Amino acid sequence: MTRYHCDQALIRGTIERDVDIEIGAGRFRRITPDSQPASDARRLRGVTFPGLANAHSHAFHRALRSRTQAERGSFWTWREVMYRAAERLTPDNYLRLARATFGEMAMAGITVVGEFHYVHHQADGSPYANANEMGEALLVAAVEAGIRITLLDTLYLHGGLGPDGYQAPKGAQRRYADADGDSWAQRIDDLSPADHQRIGAAIHSVRAVDPEHIATATEWAASNAAPMHAHVSEQRTENDQCQATHGCTPTELLHAAGSLGPNFTAVHATHLTPADLDLLRAAPAHVCMCPTTERDLGDGVGPSHGLAAAGIPIALGSDSHAVVDLFEESRAVELDERLMSEKRGAHDAGELLRMATVAGHRSLGWADAGSIDVGQRADLVTVALDSVRTAGSGRDPVATAVFAATAPDVRSVIVDGRLVVDDHRHVGFDVAGELDAAITDLLED
Amino acid sequence: MTRYHCDQALIRGTIERDVDIEIGAGRFRRITPDSQPASDARRLRGVTFPGLANAHSHAFHRALRSRTQAERGSFWTWREVMYRAAERLTPDNYLRLARATFGEMAMAGITVVGEFHYVHHQADGSPYANANEMGEALLVAAVEAGIRITLLDTLYLHGGLGPDGYQAPKGAQRRYADADGDSWAQRIDDLSPADHQRIGAAIHSVRAVDPEHIATATEWAASNAAPMHAHVSEQRTENDQCQATHGCTPTELLHAAGSLGPNFTAVHATHLTPADLDLLRAAPAHVCMCPTTERDLGDGVGPSHGLAAAGIPIALGSDSHAVVDLFEESRAVELDERLMSEKRGAHDAGELLRMATVAGHRSLGWADAGSIDVGQRADLVTVALDSVRTAGSGRDPVATAVFAATAPDVRSVIVDGRLVVDDHRHVGFDVAGELDAAITDLLED
Repeated sequence: MTRYHCDQALIRGTIERDVDIEIGAGRFRRITPDSQPASDARRLRGVTFPGLANAHSHAFHRALRSRTQAERGSFWTWREVMYRAAERLTPDNYLRLARATFGEMAMAGITVVGEFHYVHHQADGSPYANANEMGEALLVAAVEAGIRITLLDTLYLHGGLGPDGYQAPKGAQRRYADADGDSWAQRIDDLSPADHQRIGAAIHSVRAVDPEHIATATEWAASNAAPMHAHVSEQRTENDQCQATHGCTPTELLHAAGSLGPNFTAVHATHLTPADLDLLRAAPAHVCMCPTTERDLGDGVGPSHGLAAAGIPIALGSDSHAVVDLFEESRAVELDERLMSEKRGAHDAGELLRMATVAGHRSLGWADAGSIDVGQRADLVTVALDSVRTAGSGRDPVATAVFAATAPDVRSVIVDGRLVVDDHRHVGFDVAGELDAAITDLLED
Repeated sequence: MTRYHCDQALIRGTIERDVDIEIGAGRFRRITPDSQPASDARRLRGVTFPGLANAHSHAFHRALRSRTQAERGSFWTWREVMYRAAERLTPDNYLRLARATFGEMAMAGITVVGEFHYVHHQADGSPYANANEMGEALLVAAVEAGIRITLLDTLYLHGGLGPDGYQAPKGAQRRYADADGDSWAQRIDDLSPADHQRIGAAIHSVRAVDPEHIATATEWAASNAAPMHAHVSEQRTENDQCQATHGCTPTELLHAAGSLGPNFTAVHATHLTPADLDLLRAAPAHVCMCPTTERDLGDGVGPSHGLAAAGIPIALGSDSHAVVDLFEESRAVELDERLMSEKRGAHDAGELLRMATVAGHRSLGWADAGSIDVGQRADLVTVALDSVRTAGSGRDPVATAVFAATAPDVRSVIVDGRLVVDDHRHVGFDVAGELDAAITDLLED
């Protein structure tokens, strides 16, 4: 049994004070507000939240941070650096890079990551001797970084969707593609996740997977009771291409293939029609917004207000890791909505924090995490209220975290009952040093 | 003579390595790249930039941070908290709050602030015995925080612009208003700035100052060779009100009063017409954008690409201090442009950093600061390249700072040759503790 004493903690939507928390076997056993600090309790100073869920990640994109802004950062400078990184990944250097990236996430209060994994094979497209070697590297990376993972193994069959239909994968894309849907399904059936890991499915996008194989992935997810994610309508071009080929929107195509349901998450969902929104609501599906990446790539601003009004849960992802800070992602949902509507107040701070906690966990297939409740997995993220950013922010620490805190304000992180970040430091390794070494090694000759 | 050795420093637009810098009497005396570290030189690890200029600040708004987001943070919750704070300010508590706020700025690498100062008088509108007591408190606050200041003393005569023309100031607005333009000019003539301080003029807005008195302020600024700022077209309502009363845009009204010129800065300039843009270019005037405040207040996204293409220098301000981080402001200019245009690459990292450095200094009337050059004021801001945010970001440390760094990555700050922030700590006082004490004291009963 481990015992913590929180100055303030968010329990069932309410900030409670002097909360005594007992943890056993990685789960909350007893939660008692208004307690005296027990002598064996470790004090958590600041405000303590449930663990944050990063519902959309491509771990290797961390290597691109600030390197894709050259020549004013056109789309092409981004793509060039992204493909260069993708080409050079090996199981060894990917393990190292992902471990450091997940370490940065842990330091930002992220206790579970949804890794949308598509760099599967060798540089020429042929499988490794162990066809899951890359995916297994990601599972190990998460263990070593101290966080949970949902490995969303991604079906990718085509290099794009042009005027003549689906194109063959080329260049780095050959690493992404399985021979067909069955090979993909057989491969991921061989993955054997531990208790703190889940395997989910992903459809890369309607550009990379045709309707027949969207159905294959959907069947796999259904028969494995697994979450399924897909990139949906991130940019207008995808909608145009889908209309040109299939005469419908990406959401409609996924609906026709039977993909939309409670286990489904539409990632980005930036350019939706009202009919798309109705389909997602009826499913009922999740959406995962990635606002700092959507800013970086110039995707546009998704309809967060409309989604929330329709009762569609919104999860959040740091996606390309231009920024790893779920407080920044959560406030960006509201702030970017304000920029478009020229009106304050689409989402309150509590709603924004639920996007980063419970909605993210559900999107990633974790029913037993995302809130501080007896029986739930014991994840605790403590945010300092005495930094220059958070000081003086008043009586609503949820608003303080969402609107004023940044990742460096995360003081401690506990995942499944184990202390992973203590006094702003990762207990396992030097995260910044490992990031530097892994990225330099990957990208610089 | 003080001597520093920079790992990397930005000199005339180029990153130089192993730069030896000699400082005397607060100015750069010698700058020598590719040097061996002298035995008496203090090493600055990371990348060193010129000082950052925060060209638009209302210091007391720091008290509002994250307190204005209640009930989904409507415009009215913002205004209610803002007026409550404005009503409770005294010379003593304002000194304390501003000192702490400027301390937070120093820690973020800000070496000069443009304080758009309008809370002049007692609660009933009558002047203090010393009519400049509030402004002098701000000057002292900047000295104690270790940064330079341009006090933009603000002419405010009317409470707003309605269907029946200008309205009388009411409530907290009585604290802002001088009796007339001449009283304002006489009052600010009595301010006697030190070497590290400037006095400038501000016109609150076309809502608060009529054309005759816009001309008064313009004359004062011209005869004092002082900078002059005005809030311009932050929200569409102001444009509508100005059109209804004067039949022209705010920029056109300021132009007609002779205000537009090289010493003029249009703050926000969010909703400009093409004709407004031509007038600002011809002046030639500055614009000061405040992207994180414009996000918070739902103002919209200003035409940064058009301004830059017209050669209009853009300065940056943290304004309401929802965030104090000029790296975030500078990248937000580009990122919000991307959201609107759905295209990457309007401004490169070097241009964005110049907004936060040289453009800000010029806007605030400092010709002798904003670059690391012999004879300039010796301001040096060193950003860590080994934090989890900046690690691995590659060979372009300007892109790293602008696109990946946040305020807590500022390792050291030197202003006019004096060390103000050392190893992430303000050398003068506990900034977070002072913020908490000052704000709690001001707002909580």
